[in-house]
Amino acid sequence: MEEDILYHFSLSTKTHNLPEMFGDIKFVCVGGSANRMKAFAQFMHHELKLPGIPEDIKDICEGTDRYCMYKVGPVLSISHGMGVPSISIMLHELIKLLHHAQCRDVVLFRLGTSGGVGLAPGTVVITDKAVDYSFRPQFEQIVLGKVITRSTELDEGVANELLQCSSSQNIPTVIGNTMCTHDFYEGQGRLDGALCSFSHEEKLEYLRKAYEAGVRNIEMESTVFAAMCRICGLKAAVVCVALLNRFDGDQITSPHDVLVEYQQRPQVLVSHFIKKHLGLVV
Amino acid sequence: MEEDILYHFSLSTKTHNLPEMFGDIKFVCVGGSANRMKAFAQFMHHELKLPGIPEDIKDICEGTDRYCMYKVGPVLSISHGMGVPSISIMLHELIKLLHHAQCRDVVLFRLGTSGGVGLAPGTVVITDKAVDYSFRPQFEQIVLGKVITRSTELDEGVANELLQCSSSQNIPTVIGNTMCTHDFYEGQGRLDGALCSFSHEEKLEYLRKAYEAGVRNIEMESTVFAAMCRICGLKAAVVCVALLNRFDGDQITSPHDVLVEYQQRPQVLVSHFIKKHLGLVV
Repeated sequence: MEEDILYHFSLSTKTHNLPEMFGDIKFVCVGGSANRMKAFAQFMHHELKLPGIPEDIKDICEGTDRYCMYKVGPVLSISHGMGVPSISIMLHELIKLLHHAQCRDVVLFRLGTSGGVGLAPGTVVITDKAVDYSFRPQFEQIVLGKVITRSTELDEGVANELLQCSSSQNIPTVIGNTMCTHDFYEGQGRLDGALCSFSHEEKLEYLRKAYEAGVRNIEMESTVFAAMCRICGLKAAVVCVALLNRFDGDQITSPHDVLVEYQQRPQVLVSHFIKKHLGLVV
Repeated sequence: MEEDILYHFSLSTKTHNLPEMFGDIKFVCVGGSANRMKAFAQFMHHELKLPGIPEDIKDICEGTDRYCMYKVGPVLSISHGMGVPSISIMLHELIKLLHHAQCRDVVLFRLGTSGGVGLAPGTVVITDKAVDYSFRPQFEQIVLGKVITRSTELDEGVANELLQCSSSQNIPTVIGNTMCTHDFYEGQGRLDGALCSFSHEEKLEYLRKAYEAGVRNIEMESTVFAAMCRICGLKAAVVCVALLNRFDGDQITSPHDVLVEYQQRPQVLVSHFIKKHLGLVV
């Protein structure tokens, strides 16, 4: 290919010097919300004690509103929107970007929010296996009209190291399976969607089965994230905070400031991991 | 329920007077990009000759960065991000919002971009049937771990009326089937993703089969949009412009200004439909 247009990033191999812009990247952190990933970039700027003002960090993808991207030293912070299709577009273009930029030994983290299954709100879940709606550790990808199954195993070493960080940072954290669904309401057994065809008891039964299968939280991106990183030989981890305990309800009713503090917990964990690897803390 | 929190809109029945805010809505227009749906709101403000300055229209969902929402007279313009899961969260909360606001006889439009199948770039496709990767007019929803199949039929009357608008507006338009996929690269037969396991010839064969099944464009939201509107008794249409002809390539290489003009075509069509229904044009 003479030119590769990373359309949804508004970047291209012809108009941008990708090795110069991204060649030193060692950690890529992705999350659904653009505001949250901007806040994470500013937080990392502070944590890494980089020169300049955190507020000045520019959105590298400002030519498009599909995703936001911020670079802070060796850390890239990118938003991916909600759901498997949205993150999968971003991952295709990110993996091509890392390839064009000749990056080596990059670790990827998904920092997210989720519904907890039998956990107190605010607990962080480091994903052991990303599982589908039937609790299977696999992702079904459709290729030219045919269904292909891919493994969703994540890096055990990175997960264990993150768990160690959690004790030094005093953040309530567990390692458990993460169920990835394709919608927020019916697929996760919520009773409060526009459509609901099941009872409270049937919901609880599904959540109980999930719990028995080792599921500790539910979100909407982990399976394709795990599958694509694995197939491309990239080390990856999923770190999501539980905003509520789904056994207790469906709506997110905690006050805004409590939710903001919860959402910082995965950021603090991953920041500590990065600082350790850069030799900034022991 | 004492309170219904529309979490991803940052609205709630307790903190917002939804009937007062939204009771007069008759048309809801949704599209992937936040910038595009803001531009559409400003365009409608101009077309409906409303008082005030288009640039002053406020984002009703400014408390969150998940979606944007603008109200222009009886028209609501909302962004939904990319992919079925992202639009499905929005639709659940939108349908609850319309219910709480006691709206009646609302018509929904999805205004989008897409890849064309055997069409010149810039052609607008009004969706006849929204079909899946096997060209079946159905949407598979997972409810508590079980797969449920829903019909994706759209409103024939609205589609035909939109086609009439296209001739008076001189916009190249066809009615055809729209294939909805869950990713942009492998699922749509693109050769330029980070992963690709098929040949150029296999890609063309899949596109030829799609064309024979009446598919004229490919996007990522139509099946769930059609299915949810249908099951909730809402009239709906999907109007997407083809940015390229997939038989000729995979990358979107047209200049920025050409793409911007293409993206306005569905907006012009739907705006004309709305003005006709409001008695502003004949």
